[in-house]
Amino acid sequence: MQKGKASLWLERPVYIMSMAGVAGKKEGEGPLGSKIDRIVQDPMFGCDNWEQAESAMQKQAADLALEKGGIHRKDIRYLFAGDLLGQLIATSFGTVDLNLPLFGLYGACSTMGEALSLGAMCVDAGHADKVLAMASSHYATAEKQFRFPLGYGNQRPQCATWTVTGCGAVVLAGEAATGGRTEAGVTEDQTEAETPGRKVKAGTPAGNARVRVAGITTGKMVDLGARDSMNMGAAMAPAAWDTIRQNFEDFGVDETYYDKIITGDLGQVGSGILLDFMKQQGHDLTGKHMDCGMEIYDNERQDTHSGGSGCGCAAVTLCAHILPELMKGTWKRVLFVPTGALLSTVSYNEGQSIPCIAHGVVLESGGQSQKGGGKES
Amino acid sequence: MQKGKASLWLERPVYIMSMAGVAGKKEGEGPLGSKIDRIVQDPMFGCDNWEQAESAMQKQAADLALEKGGIHRKDIRYLFAGDLLGQLIATSFGTVDLNLPLFGLYGACSTMGEALSLGAMCVDAGHADKVLAMASSHYATAEKQFRFPLGYGNQRPQCATWTVTGCGAVVLAGEAATGGRTEAGVTEDQTEAETPGRKVKAGTPAGNARVRVAGITTGKMVDLGARDSMNMGAAMAPAAWDTIRQNFEDFGVDETYYDKIITGDLGQVGSGILLDFMKQQGHDLTGKHMDCGMEIYDNERQDTHSGGSGCGCAAVTLCAHILPELMKGTWKRVLFVPTGALLSTVSYNEGQSIPCIAHGVVLESGGQSQKGGGKES
Repeated sequence: MQKGKASLWLERPVYIMSMAGVAGKKEGEGPLGSKIDRIVQDPMFGCDNWEQAESAMQKQAADLALEKGGIHRKDIRYLFAGDLLGQLIATSFGTVDLNLPLFGLYGACSTMGEALSLGAMCVDAGHADKVLAMASSHYATAEKQFRFPLGYGNQRPQCATWTVTGCGAVVLAGEAATGGRTEAGVTEDQTEAETPGRKVKAGTPAGNARVRVAGITTGKMVDLGARDSMNMGAAMAPAAWDTIRQNFEDFGVDETYYDKIITGDLGQVGSGILLDFMKQQGHDLTGKHMDCGMEIYDNERQDTHSGGSGCGCAAVTLCAHILPELMKGTWKRVLFVPTGALLSTVSYNEGQSIPCIAHGVVLESGGQSQKGGGKES
Repeated sequence: MQKGKASLWLERPVYIMSMAGVAGKKEGEGPLGSKIDRIVQDPMFGCDNWEQAESAMQKQAADLALEKGGIHRKDIRYLFAGDLLGQLIATSFGTVDLNLPLFGLYGACSTMGEALSLGAMCVDAGHADKVLAMASSHYATAEKQFRFPLGYGNQRPQCATWTVTGCGAVVLAGEAATGGRTEAGVTEDQTEAETPGRKVKAGTPAGNARVRVAGITTGKMVDLGARDSMNMGAAMAPAAWDTIRQNFEDFGVDETYYDKIITGDLGQVGSGILLDFMKQQGHDLTGKHMDCGMEIYDNERQDTHSGGSGCGCAAVTLCAHILPELMKGTWKRVLFVPTGALLSTVSYNEGQSIPCIAHGVVLESGGQSQKGGGKES
């Protein structure tokens, strides 16, 4: 159901059926290390170069997500995937063996939000019963592409983030996946949640899934003129704000509607900017906001400066921490907002600014909306 | 309606409401020159560098498509767009001013097929009333990124293609766009086309549109080990075949079902390989096959060797030639198969092969399927 300018409530239940995170040694030593499904100590993943390593990581994450869900690869209808590299080579090479119809996506570090959005829209529409959404990044491929060769040992300013070596893969499934498919418009027990103007069709979770993609707010390019590629948090904060604001406006809610509002990789610097700005606009996110980039590393111990970044940052934190907490019921409703800075070395060397985007995904635990709290629209 | 492993019939009519092509001087001098909406003589498009030029071209194509359709920008719900450059910088910078929710896509030169597919799926599902699908390439940005600086004047082998400077933009709209929206599952005059197993819901064209996206076959990565980046037609031909074969299998049809089967940018070399291979498999495409890369330039006069390539090749040919011919009724049903080679300079320099993908879109003139001819499934 279209809401406002850029949002949708999904009317048919789209569940997280399975998920898996694969990450590197440094991420394994971080606060989420014990929760990440697989930590690979070799940064080369047994391959000959960094790009192949990232491709191998994607393959491992996809296979593991399928294995954990007891899902056969042939039952996945579409793969929505991307990474940070030029021409998506981590994905192109990493997904050949999966042999799945592929929609290649690029949203920089927001890619997991884009993949979840399109994947869920596709399942909601009945265009697929099960899809796989996936995004990855690798510290060494990103440094090689965007900054300096690792051997150069360049110094990083305190506002810089550290690209996560990691991949998150999520299987989304509709009711059809359980065999008891409800055709669009013919459901019997249609219920209306307390949220103003929102209709939710009841359904049984697919398999053991207990978390659903409930809604989507699609980001637009935001470019306020930031040019410092070593301070991407500051560049991305306005895009995060734009998507959160649009989500509030479209759904007629505010921060009280969510248990957590979780940005992708703003880091300490970008998060501070976002929170300050939102406070000025009358939205106090104290205790509500979390940033994947600040969760995945312990800066005191790991010297990561502003925090983690990269497609893998939000994707791995989603699989290792956010979805499990929703499954446990710690949180009932989360607004997940991966953030992306769409610069390239070409645009950077030409002195251009850094356009950014953030994609919002509403994740809920349980079969239905469980609390109201939305403002009257 | 899901068909087979990788295809969909769209059940609700999704029409081409408007389209526009913008291209460069060389394309203007080619066989399609007089049909392209706007030819810009200045390859810099009045900008300071090639990348900005490509962004400016995207902006022009989007604005022109809206203008031609009498559509206000705010009525477009989503933009599905991409280009060939690392981190999609032509799109990122080119679409900031459009201020539209954006799904950034990367499928190399198949991107227009990917954008049409996702855009049409989105409209079919009722997730949007109108979307804009767009893809671009620029000869100079592509040479700079993938090959040599233009000033180097490198020699190109006869199997090389010439990247099209061009952008095609298409507005897709559902019935809702005309105000007479048919809710899913509650249509009254449901008709069944002659195609086996296919259901089509009747509807009135949106605005003056007379061409619809009827079906989709989503490509998967195909990598047969080709490594010559100066012969991308040969690399992409197996991907084109894979998608065409899948389309035939999923829909239970063969080449007789289509008036034309139109590949994106195989060029003379790749097209020859595709036709030879299909003939071996029992499919004679004589008179049926067309390749955008062979239509957009006149090799005799323009010295383009194997033909045109780039996202803009299929996108501009679609807007300038394919859709107009469908509107005129010259063809009733076309399988449009843009082809993409997902190599980067990084993967090329590492000696890797060229993984390829092709996305198939079934375009039909008129409100409904007009001929049968499908094989019994």
